[in-house]
Amino acid sequence: VNKINHKDRLFPVDPGLRRLAKKFYDSIKDLPIISPHGHTDPIWFDKNENFTDATTLFVTTDHYVFRMLYSQGLTLEELGVKNTDLSEQEKRKIWQQFAAHFYLFRGTPTSLWLNQVFSEVFGLNEELNEKNADHFYNMIGEKLKTAEFKPRALFKRFNIEVISTTDDAIDDLQSHKNIKKNWDGRVLPTFRPDRATDPEHEDFHKNLEILSSTSVDSYLNALKDRRQYFIKHGATATDHGPPRAFTYRASKTELQILLDKALRKNLTPEEAHRFRGAMLVEMAKMSLDDGLVMQIHPGSFRNHNEKLFSKYGRDVGADIPTSTDYVHDLKALLNEFGNEPKFRLILFTLDESRYASELAPLAGHYPALKLGPAWWFHDSPEGMLRFRRSTSETAGFYNTVGFNDDTRAFFSIPARHDLARRVDCHFFAELVGQHRISEEGALKTLQDLTYKIPKESYRL
Amino acid sequence: VNKINHKDRLFPVDPGLRRLAKKFYDSIKDLPIISPHGHTDPIWFDKNENFTDATTLFVTTDHYVFRMLYSQGLTLEELGVKNTDLSEQEKRKIWQQFAAHFYLFRGTPTSLWLNQVFSEVFGLNEELNEKNADHFYNMIGEKLKTAEFKPRALFKRFNIEVISTTDDAIDDLQSHKNIKKNWDGRVLPTFRPDRATDPEHEDFHKNLEILSSTSVDSYLNALKDRRQYFIKHGATATDHGPPRAFTYRASKTELQILLDKALRKNLTPEEAHRFRGAMLVEMAKMSLDDGLVMQIHPGSFRNHNEKLFSKYGRDVGADIPTSTDYVHDLKALLNEFGNEPKFRLILFTLDESRYASELAPLAGHYPALKLGPAWWFHDSPEGMLRFRRSTSETAGFYNTVGFNDDTRAFFSIPARHDLARRVDCHFFAELVGQHRISEEGALKTLQDLTYKIPKESYRL
Amino acid sequence: VNKINHKDRLFPVDPGLRRLAKKFYDSIKDLPIISPHGHTDPIWFDKNENFTDATTLFVTTDHYVFRMLYSQGLTLEELGVKNTDLSEQEKRKIWQQFAAHFYLFRGTPTSLWLNQVFSEVFGLNEELNEKNADHFYNMIGEKLKTAEFKPRALFKRFNIEVISTTDDAIDDLQSHKNIKKNWDGRVLPTFRPDRATDPEHEDFHKNLEILSSTSVDSYLNALKDRRQYFIKHGATATDHGPPRAFTYRASKTELQILLDKALRKNLTPEEAHRFRGAMLVEMAKMSLDDGLVMQIHPGSFRNHNEKLFSKYGRDVGADIPTSTDYVHDLKALLNEFGNEPKFRLILFTLDESRYASELAPLAGHYPALKLGPAWWFHDSPEGMLRFRRSTSETAGFYNTVGFNDDTRAFFSIPARHDLARRVDCHFFAELVGQHRISEEGALKTLQDLTYKIPKESYRL
Repeated sequence: VNKINHKDRLFPVDPGLRRLAKKFYDSIKDLPIISPHGHTDPIWFDKNENFTDATTLFVTTDHYVFRMLYSQGLTLEELGVKNTDLSEQEKRKIWQQFAAHFYLFRGTPTSLWLNQVFSEVFGLNEELNEKNADHFYNMIGEKLKTAEFKPRALFKRFNIEVISTTDDAIDDLQSHKNIKKNWDGRVLPTFRPDRATDPEHEDFHKNLEILSSTSVDSYLNALKDRRQYFIKHGATATDHGPPRAFTYRASKTELQILLDKALRKNLTPEEAHRFRGAMLVEMAKMSLDDGLVMQIHPGSFRNHNEKLFSKYGRDVGADIPTSTDYVHDLKALLNEFGNEPKFRLILFTLDESRYASELAPLAGHYPALKLGPAWWFHDSPEGMLRFRRSTSETAGFYNTVGFNDDTRAFFSIPARHDLARRVDCHFFAELVGQHRISEEGALKTLQDLTYKIPKESYRL
Repeated sequence: VNKINHKDRLFPVDPGLRRLAKKFYDSIKDLPIISPHGHTDPIWFDKNENFTDATTLFVTTDHYVFRMLYSQGLTLEELGVKNTDLSEQEKRKIWQQFAAHFYLFRGTPTSLWLNQVFSEVFGLNEELNEKNADHFYNMIGEKLKTAEFKPRALFKRFNIEVISTTDDAIDDLQSHKNIKKNWDGRVLPTFRPDRATDPEHEDFHKNLEILSSTSVDSYLNALKDRRQYFIKHGATATDHGPPRAFTYRASKTELQILLDKALRKNLTPEEAHRFRGAMLVEMAKMSLDDGLVMQIHPGSFRNHNEKLFSKYGRDVGADIPTSTDYVHDLKALLNEFGNEPKFRLILFTLDESRYASELAPLAGHYPALKLGPAWWFHDSPEGMLRFRRSTSETAGFYNTVGFNDDTRAFFSIPARHDLARRVDCHFFAELVGQHRISEEGALKTLQDLTYKIPKESYRL
Repeated sequence: VNKINHKDRLFPVDPGLRRLAKKFYDSIKDLPIISPHGHTDPIWFDKNENFTDATTLFVTTDHYVFRMLYSQGLTLEELGVKNTDLSEQEKRKIWQQFAAHFYLFRGTPTSLWLNQVFSEVFGLNEELNEKNADHFYNMIGEKLKTAEFKPRALFKRFNIEVISTTDDAIDDLQSHKNIKKNWDGRVLPTFRPDRATDPEHEDFHKNLEILSSTSVDSYLNALKDRRQYFIKHGATATDHGPPRAFTYRASKTELQILLDKALRKNLTPEEAHRFRGAMLVEMAKMSLDDGLVMQIHPGSFRNHNEKLFSKYGRDVGADIPTSTDYVHDLKALLNEFGNEPKFRLILFTLDESRYASELAPLAGHYPALKLGPAWWFHDSPEGMLRFRRSTSETAGFYNTVGFNDDTRAFFSIPARHDLARRVDCHFFAELVGQHRISEEGALKTLQDLTYKIPKESYRL
């Protein structure tokens, strides 16, 4: 028995339900991975260089990991976060600290993901702790040096059919171009223009300079051109991460006034809010025209911890979900484009209290709208079950889009998809066990959710 | 084994709990249906004419059904919604489409309700699909023509002891009068004055003209008179569907000012909001006097989809729940009447996040307040379990009012009550299995929730 | 079999899981009680006088009990609430009423707590009802007279290692002093300055007079002195119960302006709100200096029922939870002190919808922040399970602080801790059964949550 990565993990305990869940799982576990939204770096697949060490791979670059360690008193400095000059000795020390605190991850998806990676990718079948830390570090380090652990080899081993990266609007997509030229792995860019559409982003002005945009027309045209460039290099989707889901229909005149103020850096917060809302509507309009699937990931209060932000900048584990409204905030966009058969909007939430009361009813009505899976802090067994339990009865399953791994942690991608598949099997086994859905219906839906629905939803 | 309508559906899977749930279910399944809130048309029971066809009965008039089909790309035109001139051929085509998309309802209560109706009312024990669609349509059509399928016969067959309809304040209740004269089935009106109390409703001015109300006194007296008229014809309750639960104590002077502006059609949205809030307080005052149980169904954002509203009008599946406040919004009304032993307020919610934090604590304190069951989008197995799990520990069971079917879908009424009874048996079996309540206590409470509590709560 | 207090209550029904839960439970059930937050009266342990009667102990002083009875039509007068002059006959009558309505508590934690108290403390193993009410009353009354039922004897019998009371900032802590002098039971005060920091509290001016505070400096110094006084007499923590979690960084000048207005009683509600927010920041600053653990219990709308408040005053079961924000409201305090390794903030919520979306992410990031257990209306089996399911996957277990009984109901303290332990065993048995955590890891975590974590979190 593998104690850290049990073959029946996440299945229901009742013997009948477990049998059912395993039967379902057997029928989907080997389906290829469709990863339509995530944060892997295309340069990995372009250069195909070996990864260096366990600490860089699993601690200093994984915000789930270092935020928990930080919350328990380890400093970001001790943890080497945002430090690209760590010595081998420092890395070993960080790894030792991580191992000594691995118990903190009990009950979190991080421990499930990591245990599965250690076991299945590296053949390490004990629980990481202070004593075996060095052994883990060495074993991982050795394997990472081999040809079998180069990014492209792992991509194949992981059975990834297609993966989308997330890329800045002004990115030249050089790695994507190189990949396409000399490899058959499908690695596609996603158009993420937040830095060019959020006037409160610190890079906004730099972006607008690069896009040479001062008039609304030139600004919107520059964005259209960038979208075309992304499409040319394989993109099928855009992604937007505004603090709220607010959308707003602005006239060109109003938008020009807001843009002028933005360029002069004297937008009020309320005007910046309207600008972002208007740009979401513009982006939806462009999506209707050029066919890029639109994703909105709203509701994260970015950089909540001012002291850490001023010292370390973004992405240090201090982004916190807030209460989010969809019914009022998305109305402008949905009223304009929600009935369009060619438009597709995939919506995410960090506010679970809106699953049953706003999101499922909206998705169960508007033809253009689909619900993204349980996201970020909710990308976990309980989080996924809450998502299914709260959305399925109103939106069904065919108004959702299957799983996203949404991760930069490349090694964990199979584990994350596997976890999601297991939880879905758990959920459907319960439905069948209670005779709320037929076994055949469950099997078909599970297969669709794993493969067909994500491919079709993202037009892959 | 009936695969679409399994005899043990919705019961727990654990054998001991299932036995317990079945035992509970056996003791309540044959209790008469008390249906104190719903939307059946009294004219059915008055005229007692046969229903015409499967499409009209199950697709074009059921918003749960056509909203899901609409969300997946079928147009309301294709679905014949709001089209009363459909030819037989068109109806068959719509039915065929419905059958081809029946898989969309997997995991929704709609599939449970419909499968039970097909099986128990029409003897059709397969799952509806493209191939058997015509057979279903024919079989249903044939049965609908028979005497056994006339409304009054079904009323008896369905074991309905009493059913309440929902009627406009200015309704003449002619059907209710006729029914009382020549039939022994209890079909009671409910006073729903939204069109006469919401100055933003498109029929408000027409209503006020009919009530000949220009002064606050004449307006309130006209409403009192209408309530007396309803009471005379059997009503025991009122119903109110404001966008928010906001209540407001206005002086007569202020109310007159608001009414004047309303009549001149120049209320601001804030004033309309206050007018509605003040009218809820006035309605509560009248309830205290005349004994009509007051229901509030707040928190639906009506007609969210502007394009559909301008083309098809109301009730096309585009009403969406919003975040709702009760603690602040209901304070005026509860402070005035919440301690009155003779006043009864039954409160519903579309915002489940308020079950444990506002609604159960309010109902577990104010003598006048009772919680209505899981409503609309939450009228489902998971929704009902969330209701029980989140409200019972603070409000108990005796501050709730049993089940409402809240439906226009007459044929599904037994299935809806049956589903609710099964889910309650499931819930209580869990409580007993974990020794959180005695078996005798569970049995008594279940019986009360099914029959005695709804009758007493609605003064039926 | 004990039907009202079954030995396996609250454990999962599945035989394997139940075995596991019992095994876990056996390893923690006898650990001493750490009660770091509650409302017992220190005078009990100081004077060590016998309690008088069942009605005073279980009805008239327990807001969980009398609020439910009030909600079902019994008046506070009939229930003897806030009446210290009840005759024996009146007490018996109230007890009879309570017994006749005991069925109302089915499904609530109150029935679990009381049944366990009746069974384990008084040896009464039937369910309380109208018929045995007198017998219960007599038996309880007789036992209460004995030496074994004196407060200090019960404290030992209950296996309480340490208990914290909640005390007004201006309290002289006389009972605590006496206890320390002549008994070895650890009864510690907690500094609760709401009456001295909330300018809208009816006792605010009296408090400020006693603290002789008119300038901000003298005011803050007086509070610092009081904290030192509490520390001298054993306090390790403070507690704050603002209506919202709002915190605010005010300059000394602004704070002086607000204080001046407060003393002249002409603060606007918005200014009172800012004053409270600024005082939370000041209290955090003092905690960083003097080491008192800071607790915030926000989000209760106090005295919602105006009529009861004007007749009976505070604490008559009319405090209602409201929707609460943490991300924006706590930002000022967390930005200032959240990264301080020496500062500790324990945060509670009455708004469960924020567990997964705000609270767990905040606690899983800020080193100073820990989550208090499921509180008040959520201190129940389902409430605790929702807490664990919604917080553990992001914050883990080591960013929580174990159980608080938070009660004045001394006799129920062992039952409350026992219930919490059982529910945790239930939860961990599920995790282990689904192989989401190892059995050893579960056992260690459970033991820590029961004993080590609360002791360390509260610096006891």
